Amino acid sequence: MLRSTTTVRVRYAETDAMGITYHGNYLPWLEMARVNLLDEIGLPYRKIEELGVFMPVLEVQMKYLKPTRFDDEVQVHLLIKEKPLLRLSIDYELRRGDDIIMRATTWHAFMNAKGEPIRPPEIWKEKMREVFAKKS
Amino acid sequence: MLRSTTTVRVRYAETDAMGITYHGNYLPWLEMARVNLLDEIGLPYRKIEELGVFMPVLEVQMKYLKPTRFDDEVQVHLLIKEKPLLRLSIDYELRRGDDIIMRATTWHAFMNAKGEPIRPPEIWKEKMREVFAKKS
Amino acid sequence: MLRSTTTVRVRYAETDAMGITYHGNYLPWLEMARVNLLDEIGLPYRKIEELGVFMPVLEVQMKYLKPTRFDDEVQVHLLIKEKPLLRLSIDYELRRGDDIIMRATTWHAFMNAKGEPIRPPEIWKEKMREVFAKKS
Amino acid sequence: MLRSTTTVRVRYAETDAMGITYHGNYLPWLEMARVNLLDEIGLPYRKIEELGVFMPVLEVQMKYLKPTRFDDEVQVHLLIKEKPLLRLSIDYELRRGDDIIMRATTWHAFMNAKGEPIRPPEIWKEKMREVFAKKS
Repeated sequence: MLRSTTTVRVRYAETDAMGITYHGNYLPWLEMARVNLLDEIGLPYRKIEELGVFMPVLEVQMKYLKPTRFDDEVQVHLLIKEKPLLRLSIDYELRRGDDIIMRATTWHAFMNAKGEPIRPPEIWKEKMREVFAKKS
Repeated sequence: MLRSTTTVRVRYAETDAMGITYHGNYLPWLEMARVNLLDEIGLPYRKIEELGVFMPVLEVQMKYLKPTRFDDEVQVHLLIKEKPLLRLSIDYELRRGDDIIMRATTWHAFMNAKGEPIRPPEIWKEKMREVFAKKS
Repeated sequence: MLRSTTTVRVRYAETDAMGITYHGNYLPWLEMARVNLLDEIGLPYRKIEELGVFMPVLEVQMKYLKPTRFDDEVQVHLLIKEKPLLRLSIDYELRRGDDIIMRATTWHAFMNAKGEPIRPPEIWKEKMREVFAKKS
Repeated sequence: MLRSTTTVRVRYAETDAMGITYHGNYLPWLEMARVNLLDEIGLPYRKIEELGVFMPVLEVQMKYLKPTRFDDEVQVHLLIKEKPLLRLSIDYELRRGDDIIMRATTWHAFMNAKGEPIRPPEIWKEKMREVFAKKS
């Protein structure tokens, strides 16, 4: 199991005319949580891309439970339950204080710079072995 | 059954450093397809909001099948299979020429200006009776 | 003189909690107007980039005169007053019906894929000679 | 003189197909710098809006000096040179390490919830007297 928490503060730019965060603007927060997790385990996403490896989003599921508003502080709790093999699935729970405001899952794979599917790079596999050995 | 097709052209602003459309930037296209459908059946979303009724997104599911790039022309095919009651589920298939590039579903409900759940307004129920009688 | 008009409809995604279009969301509309102009003169921006030539924005000036709202239809009138040499300056006037809602100017130059400044490509210079000869 | 510094990290969502931050995506960073300044002087923007007072952007000027990329850390240095009266002008200098990447200015006024221009609220005037007395 791999966990991480990222704090986001709602920008005015992210709200819409309903006075709440536009539903599409949660996806960059999930991205920030992934970037943060990779930093924490010592494998920054920037480094992965420098190897010519990309991890596009294949699928997204988001369930909006409560709206958020300008200046709200939101905790994005990220969880990878199982050691990823060819595909990677990531769960998110977003909280504002005690309120759960969203649950989401994203699915990812690996591709090269031409957009072709590839196997995860060696550096990724080693890191996953390491962090999943340590944690469970 | 209720159908509609909306054409979108990928803006440079919608692309990311992978050279493709950022995955979060598809959600405004689904929104445009809904706005377009409501225009076509003579019940513009702007009019619904003027009655103090809002139709927030409760849930989203998106499956990315092929990437799109700057200047691509994308057709968003929207489909409402069943006459909506308290909740509304909308399916989308996005195509670029013959390529299916995404399948998505959004779920919606009705709320008032305070964000409280409400029943659909009379004007909505009448319109749904009308369009679902005509079409099926 | 080179002119072109592009119609934009305000997306819900582009509004903010003030109920109006977020001030940063006008810049993609100016981009659409440039893309549209280049299409009209037969030199699509996509083709320019395929030559390894990019036209980044160097400077922006925007003056917001009236707010716009969800579903408003806005005309972006673009004007290039003088035949561009190494740099290009473009003026915009945005109208909703008879209301002028914004005046803006953007400045551009040419660069290669490495981000280095370059001279405009031959195809650009020819096209500019052609359209400025014809128009003035 | 009133100063403040805000750190921003470039999101993948903010980049475009040129591999750099899209020029329109700098405006939310300037917004974050303003929100941060108002927090620091003890007058959060959220509190101002709760009084029914809004501070829309009237005009923007941005000069892009160097591109930024995914994951770059950017410091937004904000400066209000003179005690604002009816209008407020704010200067920004954005740095990545020693590199100056942008210079910008925004102009603001006060309006009520109907969008009508109003005088600054008493609480704002007091705060400005206080901070400009202290600083200069």
